[in-house]
Amino acid sequence: MPVMIDEIKEQPKAFQAVLAQEGKNIDRLCKAVKGRDIACIIIAARGTSDNAANVAKYLIEITNGIPVALAAPSVVTLYRSRLDLSRCLVIGISQAGQSPDVIEYMTQAKAYGALTVGITNDMESELVRHTEYNIFTHAGEERGVATTKSYTSSLAATYLFALTLAENRELIEKLQQVPEAMNKALQLDALLRDIAPRYRYMEECFVMARGINHATAHEAALKIAEISYVGARPYSVADFAHGPIAVVHEGFSCFLFAPEGKAFSSVTNMIQTLSQKRAETIVYSNSDQALRKATIAIKLPVDIDELLSPIVYIIPAQIFAYYLSLTKGYNPDRPRGLTKVTLTR
Amino acid sequence: MPVMIDEIKEQPKAFQAVLAQEGKNIDRLCKAVKGRDIACIIIAARGTSDNAANVAKYLIEITNGIPVALAAPSVVTLYRSRLDLSRCLVIGISQAGQSPDVIEYMTQAKAYGALTVGITNDMESELVRHTEYNIFTHAGEERGVATTKSYTSSLAATYLFALTLAENRELIEKLQQVPEAMNKALQLDALLRDIAPRYRYMEECFVMARGINHATAHEAALKIAEISYVGARPYSVADFAHGPIAVVHEGFSCFLFAPEGKAFSSVTNMIQTLSQKRAETIVYSNSDQALRKATIAIKLPVDIDELLSPIVYIIPAQIFAYYLSLTKGYNPDRPRGLTKVTLTR
Repeated sequence: MPVMIDEIKEQPKAFQAVLAQEGKNIDRLCKAVKGRDIACIIIAARGTSDNAANVAKYLIEITNGIPVALAAPSVVTLYRSRLDLSRCLVIGISQAGQSPDVIEYMTQAKAYGALTVGITNDMESELVRHTEYNIFTHAGEERGVATTKSYTSSLAATYLFALTLAENRELIEKLQQVPEAMNKALQLDALLRDIAPRYRYMEECFVMARGINHATAHEAALKIAEISYVGARPYSVADFAHGPIAVVHEGFSCFLFAPEGKAFSSVTNMIQTLSQKRAETIVYSNSDQALRKATIAIKLPVDIDELLSPIVYIIPAQIFAYYLSLTKGYNPDRPRGLTKVTLTR
Repeated sequence: MPVMIDEIKEQPKAFQAVLAQEGKNIDRLCKAVKGRDIACIIIAARGTSDNAANVAKYLIEITNGIPVALAAPSVVTLYRSRLDLSRCLVIGISQAGQSPDVIEYMTQAKAYGALTVGITNDMESELVRHTEYNIFTHAGEERGVATTKSYTSSLAATYLFALTLAENRELIEKLQQVPEAMNKALQLDALLRDIAPRYRYMEECFVMARGINHATAHEAALKIAEISYVGARPYSVADFAHGPIAVVHEGFSCFLFAPEGKAFSSVTNMIQTLSQKRAETIVYSNSDQALRKATIAIKLPVDIDELLSPIVYIIPAQIFAYYLSLTKGYNPDRPRGLTKVTLTR
């Protein structure tokens, strides 16, 4: 049995561990943020962590009103720019805490007087030595090459931080119910296993969402590409309508994330448009209104606040990627051409 | 004759017009920026303009040391977040000045006390009514649906602004020579027309670069996808090595931008790796060292500072996309499923 599916199933527990154990670290950090004059927040990350950073950008901007930038690490690592980060909070996300780009960026951020925080699974990692504050992700050892639980654990850390900083009690309370919602999403396993063989010969597809789930589309596409070698391209439905939609032909597969909320009508309009083009739509949603129009409906058995939905909606997409890889005869634990560059101790 | 190729060829002139005519507007803007306490810069844009914004992010961070964020307009338009942009310079880029998302973002930015600037081709557009300062792109009427000259004209505006703000005389002087370099790049027309038929049956490809040309890869992929319906996926070589490379098989086409400079060795290493996988590499470079390893070498007949290279290197990629579209039997002026949503008056 590939470890990837085990790690997918461990996610609610790891998420819960962050909520239960990182409160103090986050309180300390929030106090530091409030004690300083922070004009903007910068997040440095790579790959899957960069997708978590993108969710965090939306969440922090929406709940705290502080503008957030995703770092282009090469500005520092290649071009040796002297970035004035003195009025910034700079967050580095690295599962193993060993990503050289992220560490170099954090080192410079600290040197220029930024408030720095590391989000990592390894309490003794290199990253921790270069950041003033740290939040740990309690994901345990990650053995799979295609990361899953480090994604949702990083989200746990960023969500608890953003909502605590915003003193948003309503969402903090709802956040406590997320592990239960994640467990419910895991129950889609059998459905997704049954659906996967239909995509045995799929060579390319689009993966779409909008708003805070923009990054969910990116992360879902990355998982499909990594372990099934499918040309999966992620888009915001807003951008997709202006260009890439030209590629869609009859039967072309499009995956869409459509949780109820502010982005819902944009996504359902796109489902409608794609149906008219006779494309195949695979829709993740809690709403029958969105699912009715879908070629393949994946009904999330849980209603969740849209702002929290990225944590839950990525789970069926991870499971789908896993079964698609098996269906195509691959080993999801050993993607070709891919190595776990930075190992967690 | 499709207008797209005419508009590609008009780029040096439009670029020159911005340099010649926008100096005063930019001086006024730079004075305003220096007179305020700007902690970070935010750029709001969509589609091709978003790619120009990404080049601007690297350029501003490298030459001015001010952190730059790309806006997620839906934070404002969908989620109605009250973003504190009071210490930000907010730049909106919209060719026709009518992009509703960008206009709404700028309106809120102004309301929250941000310094606002619009970059647009239309001096009487909606955007101009919602921004305190403006830079015009002098691209003339753009008739093609696949935008080309509005991309490099937006770059002209952002480059002149960033380098003036940085008081970087060396690069400002080099910027004056860019229209001439663009003209030299246009001379690749015959070579690219000859190469295009080889890709008659190409269905997917990767487009890669690193650093400041990251956005060049995105824009080149967008052009190929828009008018040739090829599944073109853009990547930074840094991210590509951690995942997507798993998809590459023998004969798979990878386009790479390799101007000499700080990112050069990363890109040439990737060319080497791809050669070992027997992938097909199509390389845009001024360096024989990079071109020697390429399956198809597209030698830029001009040496240019890496920081200015995005303006010149996109040109052969636009021309290639144009001939690829013709080779495949399409009309590049009338991409299916795509309409020019916002028309320039």
